[in-house]
Amino acid sequence: MSRLEVTEKIITAKVTQGLKWADVAKKVGRSKEWVTAACLGQMTCNEKQASVIAEIFNLTENEKKWLMVTPYRGSLPTVVPTDPTIYRFYELVNVYGTTFKELIHEEFGDGIMSAIDFKMDLKRENDPNGDRVNIVMSGKFLPYKEY
Amino acid sequence: MSRLEVTEKIITAKVTQGLKWADVAKKVGRSKEWVTAACLGQMTCNEKQASVIAEIFNLTENEKKWLMVTPYRGSLPTVVPTDPTIYRFYELVNVYGTTFKELIHEEFGDGIMSAIDFKMDLKRENDPNGDRVNIVMSGKFLPYKEY
Amino acid sequence: MSRLEVTEKIITAKVTQGLKWADVAKKVGRSKEWVTAACLGQMTCNEKQASVIAEIFNLTENEKKWLMVTPYRGSLPTVVPTDPTIYRFYELVNVYGTTFKELIHEEFGDGIMSAIDFKMDLKRENDPNGDRVNIVMSGKFLPYKEY
Amino acid sequence: MSRLEVTEKIITAKVTQGLKWADVAKKVGRSKEWVTAACLGQMTCNEKQASVIAEIFNLTENEKKWLMVTPYRGSLPTVVPTDPTIYRFYELVNVYGTTFKELIHEEFGDGIMSAIDFKMDLKRENDPNGDRVNIVMSGKFLPYKEY
Amino acid sequence: MSRLEVTEKIITAKVTQGLKWADVAKKVGRSKEWVTAACLGQMTCNEKQASVIAEIFNLTENEKKWLMVTPYRGSLPTVVPTDPTIYRFYELVNVYGTTFKELIHEEFGDGIMSAIDFKMDLKRENDPNGDRVNIVMSGKFLPYKEY
Amino acid sequence: MSRLEVTEKIITAKVTQGLKWADVAKKVGRSKEWVTAACLGQMTCNEKQASVIAEIFNLTENEKKWLMVTPYRGSLPTVVPTDPTIYRFYELVNVYGTTFKELIHEEFGDGIMSAIDFKMDLKRENDPNGDRVNIVMSGKFLPYKEY
Amino acid sequence: MSRLEVTEKIITAKVTQGLKWADVAKKVGRSKEWVTAACLGQMTCNEKQASVIAEIFNLTENEKKWLMVTPYRGSLPTVVPTDPTIYRFYELVNVYGTTFKELIHEEFGDGIMSAIDFKMDLKRENDPNGDRVNIVMSGKFLPYKEY
Amino acid sequence: MSRLEVTEKIITAKVTQGLKWADVAKKVGRSKEWVTAACLGQMTCNEKQASVIAEIFNLTENEKKWLMVTPYRGSLPTVVPTDPTIYRFYELVNVYGTTFKELIHEEFGDGIMSAIDFKMDLKRENDPNGDRVNIVMSGKFLPYKEY
Amino acid sequence: MSRLEVTEKIITAKVTQGLKWADVAKKVGRSKEWVTAACLGQMTCNEKQASVIAEIFNLTENEKKWLMVTPYRGSLPTVVPTDPTIYRFYELVNVYGTTFKELIHEEFGDGIMSAIDFKMDLKRENDPNGDRVNIVMSGKFLPYKEY
Amino acid sequence: MSRLEVTEKIITAKVTQGLKWADVAKKVGRSKEWVTAACLGQMTCNEKQASVIAEIFNLTENEKKWLMVTPYRGSLPTVVPTDPTIYRFYELVNVYGTTFKELIHEEFGDGIMSAIDFKMDLKRENDPNGDRVNIVMSGKFLPYKEY
Repeated sequence: MSRLEVTEKIITAKVTQGLKWADVAKKVGRSKEWVTAACLGQMTCNEKQASVIAEIFNLTENEKKWLMVTPYRGSLPTVVPTDPTIYRFYELVNVYGTTFKELIHEEFGDGIMSAIDFKMDLKRENDPNGDRVNIVMSGKFLPYKEY
Repeated sequence: MSRLEVTEKIITAKVTQGLKWADVAKKVGRSKEWVTAACLGQMTCNEKQASVIAEIFNLTENEKKWLMVTPYRGSLPTVVPTDPTIYRFYELVNVYGTTFKELIHEEFGDGIMSAIDFKMDLKRENDPNGDRVNIVMSGKFLPYKEY
Repeated sequence: MSRLEVTEKIITAKVTQGLKWADVAKKVGRSKEWVTAACLGQMTCNEKQASVIAEIFNLTENEKKWLMVTPYRGSLPTVVPTDPTIYRFYELVNVYGTTFKELIHEEFGDGIMSAIDFKMDLKRENDPNGDRVNIVMSGKFLPYKEY
Repeated sequence: MSRLEVTEKIITAKVTQGLKWADVAKKVGRSKEWVTAACLGQMTCNEKQASVIAEIFNLTENEKKWLMVTPYRGSLPTVVPTDPTIYRFYELVNVYGTTFKELIHEEFGDGIMSAIDFKMDLKRENDPNGDRVNIVMSGKFLPYKEY
Repeated sequence: MSRLEVTEKIITAKVTQGLKWADVAKKVGRSKEWVTAACLGQMTCNEKQASVIAEIFNLTENEKKWLMVTPYRGSLPTVVPTDPTIYRFYELVNVYGTTFKELIHEEFGDGIMSAIDFKMDLKRENDPNGDRVNIVMSGKFLPYKEY
Repeated sequence: MSRLEVTEKIITAKVTQGLKWADVAKKVGRSKEWVTAACLGQMTCNEKQASVIAEIFNLTENEKKWLMVTPYRGSLPTVVPTDPTIYRFYELVNVYGTTFKELIHEEFGDGIMSAIDFKMDLKRENDPNGDRVNIVMSGKFLPYKEY
Repeated sequence: MSRLEVTEKIITAKVTQGLKWADVAKKVGRSKEWVTAACLGQMTCNEKQASVIAEIFNLTENEKKWLMVTPYRGSLPTVVPTDPTIYRFYELVNVYGTTFKELIHEEFGDGIMSAIDFKMDLKRENDPNGDRVNIVMSGKFLPYKEY
Repeated sequence: MSRLEVTEKIITAKVTQGLKWADVAKKVGRSKEWVTAACLGQMTCNEKQASVIAEIFNLTENEKKWLMVTPYRGSLPTVVPTDPTIYRFYELVNVYGTTFKELIHEEFGDGIMSAIDFKMDLKRENDPNGDRVNIVMSGKFLPYKEY
Repeated sequence: MSRLEVTEKIITAKVTQGLKWADVAKKVGRSKEWVTAACLGQMTCNEKQASVIAEIFNLTENEKKWLMVTPYRGSLPTVVPTDPTIYRFYELVNVYGTTFKELIHEEFGDGIMSAIDFKMDLKRENDPNGDRVNIVMSGKFLPYKEY
Repeated sequence: MSRLEVTEKIITAKVTQGLKWADVAKKVGRSKEWVTAACLGQMTCNEKQASVIAEIFNLTENEKKWLMVTPYRGSLPTVVPTDPTIYRFYELVNVYGTTFKELIHEEFGDGIMSAIDFKMDLKRENDPNGDRVNIVMSGKFLPYKEY
């Protein structure tokens, strides 16, 4: 799949040029979370966003076009992620999965938190006992409906 | 494993008595997130917390003791969760997994967000386009160290 | 999980009493698709619906309460269904999966067909070459959004 | 397998030329659902259809021949699809699998909806609360027979 | 699932009473292949057939009703069968799978051999070098159709 | 594995030259079932058979030698085949697996139908209701022995 | 499956009575390898053998009958065995699998070592550096045949 | 991994040159079992052995060095081997696994047969009913120890 | 398997009686690591050890006998452990697996660290930055041998 | 992923140049455990460390930069490792997993041994009965906290 090749080219360019996602995001004019996901092949860019990214990473015209195609999503090579940084998130789903479910249903009734109409923000939280990773997720509640 | 039986007894009691996790949490004196996880067999209670929970759900003295034993964690029956409410969280790990990783490393360097020294808060976010589920996660950053 | 036991009791009652889902649905006042799914442990009933179902299948008061609890969804015992009638639907996902994706994106842009804000209708389609199963699915389109 | 290479060439050509499946389908003279599936390596073309597709996507004579060979079907790289747009269909099989089965048997008796003698139509359904994806599936009912 | 219990009761009765499937089949008036599959929970009986089977194996009235319900098919406890007698058939699919496919397409065009409109006959083939198992399968060819 | 490359070269040659397995088989002087399996990398040829096949498909001397090496068998890329034509055979194993087992044991005692000392014949069975695929399998019965 | 219950009863009786497989084998009049496998639910006994085993382990008449039914074979609860004593044999297949294959083909041509017409003998091999487990396996060579 | 490439080069050379493992083994001065395993990438050679093998198969100096590096062992591409010749060994582990375990413990106490301090010999066993594959395995018994 | 029931009885007794493994170990006269593993069904006790354990946990005479039978080892319910405390050890194998391998081979040559002739010690390591878990593992090196 | 290519280049260089990890570690000025893991693509180097490694293994400037990027961790190609040297560590997790858990909780309360704030030392332990592999692991204890 050719989007994968574009993603790999972006990653390689980032390593060799020493770029930062936050700077890329600023140029694109969107959050660092969304822009990073887009560069990693998980989101679809519009023409203007694709042009900015193409320029930063020296993409060809055709490679740029791939950024505007809805990708086949899924960023992990295995069902259970092996990388410890990513695994901790899988662990949260495993340990807190039923808790998420219970509390969403208690507050909202039967339905889900959308992973599509969704946004998030990841930032540093200063703490004298060691700084913390702070992630705010916000997803629209979608109710199951009778019919 | 007997903790599982205590968990099932608690769930059944909650259904038949019509209780709310938020009310249980208030009586225990801890967040609804932690208390729900504890009642679902994912956290360890101290004597006092166990006593409150045991009273609410009519547990025997031995069942109460199980609440004070560190559980074998993992709340899901399958590697990929089938329940749509929980699956959306797995989907987030799948779609945003490499983004979490990149942004944590960009901000903090090599390391992880702890899933142990971790807390979270799930609440309603009012929105004219439909209310949203808002989840704030906070986990200590743990750096990999050379040796 | 106790909902499973209620589901099994309903199925057993249906077999031994010789009931039809269409008749159950009529009494509940909802479509046969939604009511069947609810009886099979995949949807959440309100008090009134649960009362009707409980009466039809001779459920106890506590069993009725389980019908009003959001279930842990997932009706299949294996990742790939072994039953030929159900497998054909998995096969459609396998063969037409990328086609669904391409056509949804071509018509709507990046996003999904909701499986939550969703309804369907299954009926007989008369055909001189042999009658056909006709299924109409309707799910809200949910667009991915930038942020 | 060489059909895969032809498929990838078609997809790449579509991205770089900015084509639409609906337009390809019109030229081929078949539904957009069948033509898209054919271009994605899931259906077999006859000589005339293959010629049209070959011309649109600049295929060589040998590449065109692959379009006329029955493909090894299966469009997904994993048993459970990771892409959210496709996953929702898998979720429907998971949640509604037993419902499909019950209602087909109630209406037709023991048998299946054919995934071979099958056609479908995917279109936009206007809705003031947000447009919907509307899919009509029609598959011949095939009864199990005694012998 | 209660059909499983009926199947187990039938198997246990067969062992303790020392019955033969061929004799059961004769009383039912159908082939030994179909009747065995039905007794093992893979086919649906009509009222008369169910009555004969119920009498042979001393089933209750309710157990008999389960024989008339379309079963959730799939007779094997694992994805790859561990039993050597059954594994050999899986091995045939593995070794000859692409050969079946090529020869069916060469003779009939694109389509499948139905496993629904299907019958088979298993018998002894006398051979001086050691008798052979002879299996004749006959399934309707179902062509893929354009639309 | 190099045998795989020879197989792919044969398949490509067959597509571009428009050959038929039945014709290849006639030239080799063996059944179409065995010859197709051999060309697809599942059987071992002797010198003469390899020479005929090498000539038909324009293989080099070294490629021809691979035809004479016992292959690592297994023609399917996944544990459960995704291709519908092949899946139907897996489904037969799944649905009829225990029936095969019971009837073989009833007729022959404890043992298996050999998948090694095995032959088969696949042909068209004319039928006014639609032609059928007819497959005759013949495998030596091998008894388990005490020792 | 009821044979499993008979097996568990035999194992429990062996533990509580302190029996040895070698002694059971002597009474049955067959090798300790075959008799142990039979008692563990992997081989089929004749009437006389079943009677001896039934007496030793205090089986009922019906339990004895299960010993005379061909079992559903497969003695391990997981695809890859977790028990270290058994895992070492899986490891041998993994490390030496291709070596077994090459040497069998070099000596015998294309075919297999039968696991059905098979016997084995496990004994102690005295060695000053520590005694060794010595296993002699003997399986009939079965050639693949052309047809 | 480069050892894999050396292995593939050796296998290709063997096919095109028409060599025999037994002859290679004689030149190396070790058993055919060990030498075949070494050539297939499962054992580590010393300088002298590597030189002999390198000469036979025309390896470069660097390729020869790989023969002297401890390999990442595991010769099979799937968890359950698909090749029938190798599968039979997996079947033996499956059917006889618990028997191996019981008899080793009965003779030696708690422990394992080493798969490291291990040797084996595979040879033809003449038999009027058809020759047999005879395999003698010898592995040191390693007892579990208390501490 | 009945050993499992004995293990569960021991665990339940420990919870309700409030015992400590270290105290059990002292009474048994062996290390806490070995004794805990034995009580959890992973090691084999001699008569005297079994008697002490049986007395502590109020086991019956027959339950005590199970402690003296070599168990079917494997303490985890899933291939990848879900419990975070245990998962960290799996993560170490995943991250450091090739490092373990390289360093063992560099120091000792080709071979393994025995997991049978093995002992370990787990203790608290005081540290002003937070105490540490200190584990010392010692396993005999077993060299692969030529033959 | 390009880090993989750098790792493979390092491994190949090590084989052809005949280097030792211990010597590489001395030049880098860190433990052989950490440096080996870093060279195998599991740890992140700083500029100075990367320069030393790059010089030893003749890496280009861009390859060196990859050593300074946090890697996607996970060194094993399969969920259960097939290599015997590495498998023994997986076996320890399997056999001793619940023992690790019990003893950590008994000594420290609910929490984990960190695999991030972790170091280890692998060395030879002289022993007249055969030298032993000695591994000391030290990981910070991280307590679960209430909130």
